[in-house]
Amino acid sequence: MAISERAMSAYDQLELKFSRQSALSGAMAMLHWDSAVIMPDGGSGARANQLATLGVLAHDLLTDPGIGDLLDEAEADRGGLNDWQQANLREMRNGWRHATAVDADLVEAHSHATSACEMRWRAAREENDFASLIPSLEEVVDLTRQIAVAKSEAFQVSPYDALLDQYEPGCVSATIDTLFNDLGAFLPDFLQHVLERQKSQPDLILPAGPFAIETQKQVGHDFMEALGFNFDHGRLDISHHPFTGGIPDDVRLTTRYVTEDFTQSLMGTLHETGHALYEQGLPAAWRSQPVGLARGMALHESQSLLVEMQLSRGEDFLSYALPKMKSAYQGSGAAWDLQNLQQLYLNVKPDMIRVDADEVTYPLHVILRYRLEKALLSGDLAIAELPGAWNEQMQTLLGVTPPTDSMGCLQDIHWPSGAIGYFPTYTMGALAAAQIFQAAFDNVENLQAQIRVGRFDGLVTWLRQNIHEVGSSKSTNEILQAATGYALHTDAFKAHLNARYLPS
Amino acid sequence: MAISERAMSAYDQLELKFSRQSALSGAMAMLHWDSAVIMPDGGSGARANQLATLGVLAHDLLTDPGIGDLLDEAEADRGGLNDWQQANLREMRNGWRHATAVDADLVEAHSHATSACEMRWRAAREENDFASLIPSLEEVVDLTRQIAVAKSEAFQVSPYDALLDQYEPGCVSATIDTLFNDLGAFLPDFLQHVLERQKSQPDLILPAGPFAIETQKQVGHDFMEALGFNFDHGRLDISHHPFTGGIPDDVRLTTRYVTEDFTQSLMGTLHETGHALYEQGLPAAWRSQPVGLARGMALHESQSLLVEMQLSRGEDFLSYALPKMKSAYQGSGAAWDLQNLQQLYLNVKPDMIRVDADEVTYPLHVILRYRLEKALLSGDLAIAELPGAWNEQMQTLLGVTPPTDSMGCLQDIHWPSGAIGYFPTYTMGALAAAQIFQAAFDNVENLQAQIRVGRFDGLVTWLRQNIHEVGSSKSTNEILQAATGYALHTDAFKAHLNARYLPS
Repeated sequence: MAISERAMSAYDQLELKFSRQSALSGAMAMLHWDSAVIMPDGGSGARANQLATLGVLAHDLLTDPGIGDLLDEAEADRGGLNDWQQANLREMRNGWRHATAVDADLVEAHSHATSACEMRWRAAREENDFASLIPSLEEVVDLTRQIAVAKSEAFQVSPYDALLDQYEPGCVSATIDTLFNDLGAFLPDFLQHVLERQKSQPDLILPAGPFAIETQKQVGHDFMEALGFNFDHGRLDISHHPFTGGIPDDVRLTTRYVTEDFTQSLMGTLHETGHALYEQGLPAAWRSQPVGLARGMALHESQSLLVEMQLSRGEDFLSYALPKMKSAYQGSGAAWDLQNLQQLYLNVKPDMIRVDADEVTYPLHVILRYRLEKALLSGDLAIAELPGAWNEQMQTLLGVTPPTDSMGCLQDIHWPSGAIGYFPTYTMGALAAAQIFQAAFDNVENLQAQIRVGRFDGLVTWLRQNIHEVGSSKSTNEILQAATGYALHTDAFKAHLNARYLPS
Repeated sequence: MAISERAMSAYDQLELKFSRQSALSGAMAMLHWDSAVIMPDGGSGARANQLATLGVLAHDLLTDPGIGDLLDEAEADRGGLNDWQQANLREMRNGWRHATAVDADLVEAHSHATSACEMRWRAAREENDFASLIPSLEEVVDLTRQIAVAKSEAFQVSPYDALLDQYEPGCVSATIDTLFNDLGAFLPDFLQHVLERQKSQPDLILPAGPFAIETQKQVGHDFMEALGFNFDHGRLDISHHPFTGGIPDDVRLTTRYVTEDFTQSLMGTLHETGHALYEQGLPAAWRSQPVGLARGMALHESQSLLVEMQLSRGEDFLSYALPKMKSAYQGSGAAWDLQNLQQLYLNVKPDMIRVDADEVTYPLHVILRYRLEKALLSGDLAIAELPGAWNEQMQTLLGVTPPTDSMGCLQDIHWPSGAIGYFPTYTMGALAAAQIFQAAFDNVENLQAQIRVGRFDGLVTWLRQNIHEVGSSKSTNEILQAATGYALHTDAFKAHLNARYLPS
């Protein structure tokens, strides 16, 4: 092996090393899925050891001293590489600089601190006891700040942008500020108009359950198949929190079922199907390389929201889907009228919990978290002051005040798990979804008619060509520019909200 | 990490390294289970890459040049270690000498050859075309022989014994020869007497199906639970071939269901439950170390056969189990009489297929394979001569001749997968099972009465204390000596067969 590696070009040696890294990441992804879906409780200790060991080995592979030299050598010789190889080399360099920018001791301390803080957070949320979380959250934020500073020095960007780059490579907060200031100015007024208009609408009628779980599974499965999910390369299972795991060749999608409300599992399944189609559509020739990965969290979320929000809650999709649902659940009566069902799906209500929020209020939850996490990271906001700042912003942005911290600043796991810089990608995804869905309508002939009869191959083929198969060969904005004609902006999202919630 | 490792004793450093190795093996075990039970077909390529990468990393960990020095140092300083640590050190040394005795290139060539040969074998068996298998089987046997010779030189034992040591550490073929010559002399005559006696028994009546799979699952689950399988540390699932996978803290047991015959899944489940109880009972304090592993394949098989053959097909167990089965399947009539059901379970029939064989003829299938694989390894038997030699031995030992090679020398995957030295452990397990079950009866008060009312804690506690919790801290014969008073012998097995099949 050593001899044959020595005869290879620097770039080829890097591909070999990164394919091992990819296999390790894939193994970890499958074990994570197993932990959430299959594993008996008693297996958790051994599983944690397995994942920690694989994590260390993956990190060791990436920080191997030889990699830096190979990267230098391959970059000096990049003239001989094609575009995809050059893009792959760039992605390798970015992964390597994230891995090597931070001292191994700091990575390990951060990992232990977040594990402890996540456990503490579960109890604190359960008991509505923010004070008990303060010391461990302070430690996590402090260590995350140290990582941010180390990366900031290595990358020559601000500490917050260094964290952001982990989730949305190349994105800077100046861009987000512009987008979110625009949304923050638009949404509160818009929300009031929508709420005003909703008052004049007929009362909502909930379809009466129970809805057998087997039937819900079948309905979800059928819609996934109609949308192009490939069951030869994936599965649908159940977990406490729906997620899309696994690897592109074996996408493990999960949902959960509530017998009294079939819409929750259905929308959860459709949301995850958007993520899954992206994974399954990533460039097949680059499966084991960094350039073959999804571009970032914003585009990933755009694909789930495109399916769940843009497509599935629209009248075109519902006019195809409703007869299928009525037939599966033997539904009848006013609750099953298309207008009622769509009104259910599009009901807007300012409330406390982000994950339950509608598409109008969701960005306000995100803007709040974005503002606060920047202040936490810079030290402008002390952990102890978080509940007060949270509640004040909730009142300003959404007009509500959480009655408890569990329904306020304790609701999300992100900060306890050290994920600062992740939240804004949700709303960037919502903006991108609107932009992309509009572009699909502009480019795919008869798309509306296709959707109304349950044909999604036109839409999915266009998404594959313009988003999925691009992988990480271009930046998010380059992909959006090529697919939609514009870098990420707010206009399409605002136009979508206006058309859907305030139709003239 | 480097500094703290340097401050540790050589032994403690080894424990740390072997715990990483254990975590990698555990991850591989879970991914193997997933491949057989859960994975969509399209995931197989990526999974093969994951397993190959983890395999290389596990091998790298074990063959790290530093390990040899640490072993030397720890052995020189073994006075400070307790008995378990010393045993652990011995097991580490054995694992290390297996890993380092063979050149990495040979290991890799063997791995590729067996993968190719297994694929070739599936087709050859399907098409009853032994000739098409000859070249690739020759290559596998040749490479296996090279491994055997390399280990033979390193361990100073015969090539066959070097292979045997992989599955049953410390065992030598001279011991097996004595046991198998004894059985080979006893069984053919005994078999004729049993067949003669069977003629005078009433005709067998098969309980009439179909037996709903959900019910079969529930029945299997209930018996597993009664036997002490801990579902907080394991699962029951379905796969094409039943097996016990996973790790001691998370034992993944599988079975398969045939709607027309509930006894197949039940006996499969009970067999695997014996394996699973051994795994779950391994010493908890040594989970991540070599000394905490099961002792070898012979003792492992003894635990499965103890449950399936010794316990579950006996009248005591059936008198407890039959009412439960009758109730679950709403069985009635002569087919469900205890005597008929036991006769079904104990029916003896010389036939072609090892995995379907009864406990009287099974050892003859093994003796045949043991003789032939020794001749294949030594070169006394050419691959091309295998079908003739197989059929001749079948006629001599079992009085039948396979009509096709698919029902003859093509039936098992062992040789195509390079597993020479594995087959004898099946029958060593059968001998040990008889010996251990007899010892349990001698030592557990009222065991018969307990079994008849479905109480197995007395038996399982005795097994845990005398077999399971010993792990690999002693040799197989030391364990048998302590538990039963004797090293492995044939008397208990022969006495068991006589009592069960030729009662006076």
